[in-house]
Formats: sequence, structure tokens, C-alpha cells
Amino acid sequence: MSELQNDRFLRALMRQPVDRTPVWMMRQAGRYLPEYRATRARAGSFMGLCTHPGLACEVTLQPLERFPIDAAILFSDILTVPDAMGLGLYFAEGEGPRFERPVQDEAAVTALGTPDPEEDLGYVMEAVRLIRRELDGRVPLIGFSGSPWTLATYMVEGGGTKNFARVKGMMFDRPDLMHRLLERVTGAVSAYLNAQIAAGAQAVMIFDTWGGVLTPRDYAAFSLAYMARIVQGLTREHEGRRVPVILFTKGGGQWLEAMAGSGCDAIGIDWTLTLGEARGRVGDRVALQGNLDPSILYASPARIREEVARALASFGPGSGHVFNLGHGIHPDVDPDRAAVMIEAVHEFSRPYHETGHR
Amino acid sequence: MSELQNDRFLRALMRQPVDRTPVWMMRQAGRYLPEYRATRARAGSFMGLCTHPGLACEVTLQPLERFPIDAAILFSDILTVPDAMGLGLYFAEGEGPRFERPVQDEAAVTALGTPDPEEDLGYVMEAVRLIRRELDGRVPLIGFSGSPWTLATYMVEGGGTKNFARVKGMMFDRPDLMHRLLERVTGAVSAYLNAQIAAGAQAVMIFDTWGGVLTPRDYAAFSLAYMARIVQGLTREHEGRRVPVILFTKGGGQWLEAMAGSGCDAIGIDWTLTLGEARGRVGDRVALQGNLDPSILYASPARIREEVARALASFGPGSGHVFNLGHGIHPDVDPDRAAVMIEAVHEFSRPYHETGHR
Repeated sequence: MSELQNDRFLRALMRQPVDRTPVWMMRQAGRYLPEYRATRARAGSFMGLCTHPGLACEVTLQPLERFPIDAAILFSDILTVPDAMGLGLYFAEGEGPRFERPVQDEAAVTALGTPDPEEDLGYVMEAVRLIRRELDGRVPLIGFSGSPWTLATYMVEGGGTKNFARVKGMMFDRPDLMHRLLERVTGAVSAYLNAQIAAGAQAVMIFDTWGGVLTPRDYAAFSLAYMARIVQGLTREHEGRRVPVILFTKGGGQWLEAMAGSGCDAIGIDWTLTLGEARGRVGDRVALQGNLDPSILYASPARIREEVARALASFGPGSGHVFNLGHGIHPDVDPDRAAVMIEAVHEFSRPYHETGHR
Repeated sequence: MSELQNDRFLRALMRQPVDRTPVWMMRQAGRYLPEYRATRARAGSFMGLCTHPGLACEVTLQPLERFPIDAAILFSDILTVPDAMGLGLYFAEGEGPRFERPVQDEAAVTALGTPDPEEDLGYVMEAVRLIRRELDGRVPLIGFSGSPWTLATYMVEGGGTKNFARVKGMMFDRPDLMHRLLERVTGAVSAYLNAQIAAGAQAVMIFDTWGGVLTPRDYAAFSLAYMARIVQGLTREHEGRRVPVILFTKGGGQWLEAMAGSGCDAIGIDWTLTLGEARGRVGDRVALQGNLDPSILYASPARIREEVARALASFGPGSGHVFNLGHGIHPDVDPDRAAVMIEAVHEFSRPYHETGHR
């Protein structure tokens, strides 16, 4: 493997000194980029893109050609794991993801497969290896998975949901069964992330898209506890480096302290709290990633720069901040506006990292 | 007007002693009730229901026939105000509300009408008067409005939105214009709520459905500031009684302290924080309303009762709690499960109100 030429992202996650704040964007490889749409069209379908390592590698690298970002993130879908567990993932046009065989009873939980990542999710591992080769040490590669709770919502509902009727019904009435399901998913996710690390992922992120729909107690018991278990079981050293773990619960701003106790290295936050407040609450326990409202990229360059400056000032001096949006970039954003944000991070962040700051 | 026979709801909002915790449900007059669906069918359309005082009165009273609840809430839609300001509200089948003339530039803001509530929203005032007559003092009637920010999101986007591209674009790039728009809406909402009070609403609630999509700073400047202005301008005494005001920002749990400083009497909270935590943070400044996850009504009666007991225990002894869901009841819930919740509040709340508690 080539020597890593830019390790700002990894250093910031470990709160080690950096020359400037590293930056990347959630969903940076995505629909807002015309070059992504072109590759997607060649792939024929979204799943075609995910399951073809060459194409997944191509779209993963596209944003690096455009923007001076400090990390690449594997292009994939969070539902590949339940698919490999036997649920039969498909995308109905204009309907979002669906499962042929949702998990709604004891028998379905028992029947769940235990995927071998190299066997059943080999296309992902192949993509990771290919991306690492093509990156050639330019920036680190982030691997990822959905959180067990988030995956379980799709698995029980059979697709996306607004009311979470079935999955919450199971959680409330059959907590024992929900825990069994979450244990199975946790095992599969742990193996999946460890295989990504073995294949070359240099950091991993767990996306808990739906943890924020729970009460504080249910979040702790049904989402955070399983993410913590994954964190405990991860390979944390690889290729002579620490492999940092980032947790991101959308709407989880109220539970930062609990998240910081999970053993993760960093927490992603959305824009409903300031970086300064979040930093005050988690102290030196973890790094923070975030947190611009993605909608700021609809605004003028001057306003975008102002918001970047404000976010950097809110975090304040010292390492421990990875600049990002607070959620995925919107598909109708002009890529040039993303460039404005990224360049503003480059321009404004150096003073916060001058010697003398921790 | 008949003497009010049950003033638990009003007393709890003012943190005065009560014999048990009052309870009602957001969207209690709605689709989950077969009798509502029957009236809605007779009305022909949703707007037909809203604009026909007799039918609006009928559906407002339906939940009182079924459940021993402590308040009625006016049946109406939050978009009646922008409609009366000249935007042309219509409901495209399966598409949700739309406006014929969205407000997207200076000229459109200038052109906004200043509705006379008795003239332009007379159907609402007529419904309020009719409901009060039909209630005959059984329980108090709650009037309501959308918050200026929430109404502005629909007005600028021309309907519902996921990304808030236009309205946030205007907020970021033309804060002056956004403030002008919000001022106009605030004037209209103030007049509308005061007219509801004059017509007989005994408490009012401001629904800030979309305040939670803002940063803390933008929430304070573009949503809370205008709700506070409305609160300041409201008639607070009518028929010899105080008219309490409840603010509800969905996802606003992080900003309770700021909301408590608005001059409102009570804050509605969702289930992402406990009543105990919320009470600790707002102290004796305001009452609290909430906060069961509406999805608990998909669970078994035993589980529902358990969650009711837990919420009551979390708030603890003394007045200042109005029991409610943390959001509107889901349309696919079995009404019998709502009855279980309401009866559990009756059954379990008395001990928290025994003499000796504040």
C-alpha cells in the first residue's frame, strides 16, 4: 500500500494536531454531481452501481477530482447487509428500497442468514480494495454501515416508513424478539465493518439515521447499546494505524454524552446544536464531525463563507473537528457551492491550528 | 356562556392544583376515528370540512363522545391564514396542500393581504362560536394557529417540502425579505388568534411544525422571536379567565429554556426528552404538555399503561402537566388504544396531585 499523503482527517478524529481542519461531505459521491449521474446511467440501476466494484470505485473517486477534500467514502448502500441476510432487496422505481421478505415474526428472525462478508458481500470488499489502489494514498478511505436499529427499521417495515408502526410495535410488545433481531444484525454489521477494515477502510462510520425517532430510554437500549457493542468488537489497529470510528445519530444532539461513552472516537452532529455547545458537553472524550445545514448550499457564496467561518469559530481552536455538513448534501445543489464551502474551510481554519493551541 | 364544568386543563397550564392530570390528544379529531371519516366523506373534501362550521363543529366534538378527555381543539387547518392572505390554497389529491401563488419575491411579499379574521376567516370564527355553544361548558376549547415560520415554509415553497430549498435560500440570502414576510404573517396570526379568543377559544396553541429544521440561532431569530411577538400581543384575559398559550416546536427539545422565556404559559414537548428532564430545565416558569411517542398506541394495552405510568412518574408530583402525545395521533391507530391511554392517565395520575404537593 502507498504511504498516506494526507492524514488530516484521521489525525483530527484522534484529536492530534493538524495544520487545518479536514473536510469532506456526507453523500459527496451522489446525484448532485453530473459525472455521478452519468456513471449511474451506465450502471442501469442504483443496485447495479453498488454491486459493480469498478463503477462503485469510479463514483467514490469523482468528488476528489473536483474538490480538495480530505477523505473518500466508500460508495454503497446501507441495505446491502440485510440483503445479504436473505431479505431480498429491490428498488421499485420512484418508491425507494423494499424487501421481498420483511422480518415480522419469530420464524423470520430465526431464519436470518449470517452473511460471510467476503462471500456474500464480496462486491463491497472488492470495491474497497479497488478504491484503495486507485486512491494511491491521496486521502484515507472511510468505510461505513447502517446502525443495527436503523437497519432493523427497514427489515421489519419492509422498506422506508413514516410512522414506524411495525418496528415500534415489535419493540414495545416483543422487546425480547427485537433484541434477538438486533443481536443478529449487530453480528452481521460487526463482521461487515471488520471485513471493510481488513480490505482497506482506514476509518469507519456508523449511520444511525433513525435513532432519533426513539425516546431517550429506547435509544439507549435499542440503538446506542448495539452501536457500542459494534465499536467494542471492531479492529482498531490496521496497517500500523488506529482505525477511528464515527457514530452519527440524526437528531441525536440531545444524547451526545451517552454517545461519547460508547467507545467511539468521534460523533457526527447535525445543525440543531452548535459545535461549541457540543464540544462543551463532550469535552476531550471524542472528536466532532459536522455540522453545516446542507441547505446553506442553496445560498450565495458570501453567505456560505460566513456560515463556514461561524462554524469554525464555534468549535474554536485546536484539533478534534472534522468539517462536514450535518446531513447528506441535497441532490439539487450546485456543485460549485460545495466547492465554495470546502475552499472556505481551507481558507479560514488555519488560525485555529496555530502552535500554542492544544 | 355556560359555566365551565371541567377546568383541569386550564388550571394545569397555569400550574394551579388539580385533582388529576388533564389529558387530550393532538389530532384527536381526525382520520383514525370512523365517525370522522364519515363526516369527511359527507363534506366531500378536506377544505369542505374546514370551511363548513357545522361540520367542523361536528368533528371537533366527536372525540369527546368517545373519550373522557379534558379539552376540545378546534378542527381546522394551519394553512387557512396564508389562504386568507391571498395565496390560493388547494389540495391536489394524494399530494397534500399547495398554493396557487407562492411567495418568492419582494413583490409577492408586498402584495400579501391583511386578512380581517371575521371577514376573511369567518368560517373559523363561526365554528369556534358553534363549538362553544355545543360544548356547553363540558371542557374548554383550544384555538390554534401555525407559527409564522411554519406558515412561511409553505408560503415560500408553495406547499410541503423535504429540503426547504426555497425558504432557506430566502432566509440565508434575503434575511431582510424573510423578516418582512414573517412580520406580515405574525400580524395576521395575532389577529387570527385574538379573533378566536374573542369568539370563544379558552386557550390557544401555536404549532411550530418546522422550527426544528433550523440552527439554534436561526430558530431564535426566524421562529421563536415571532412566536414571542404573538404571545406578547394576545388577549390574555377573556370571560374573566386567563387564556393560556402553549408553544409547540417539533424537535425543539434542545431549546426549551429559550421557549420558556417567550412569555408562553406552557410548552409542548415530543418524546425525545423525558418530562422529568424538561421539568428540571424549565423549572416553575412554564407548564409542560406531552409527551408519549404516538407509536406507543400500536402496542398492547398493558404496554400503553406502562408507558403512561412512566411518563406520569417522570413529571412527578404537582400540577403543571397536561398529558398528551408528543405529536399527532397516527391515522392508522385503533381508537380503543387511545382509550386505554386516556383511562390510564385517569387511573394513575391522582396520587401525584394529593395535598401536600405544590
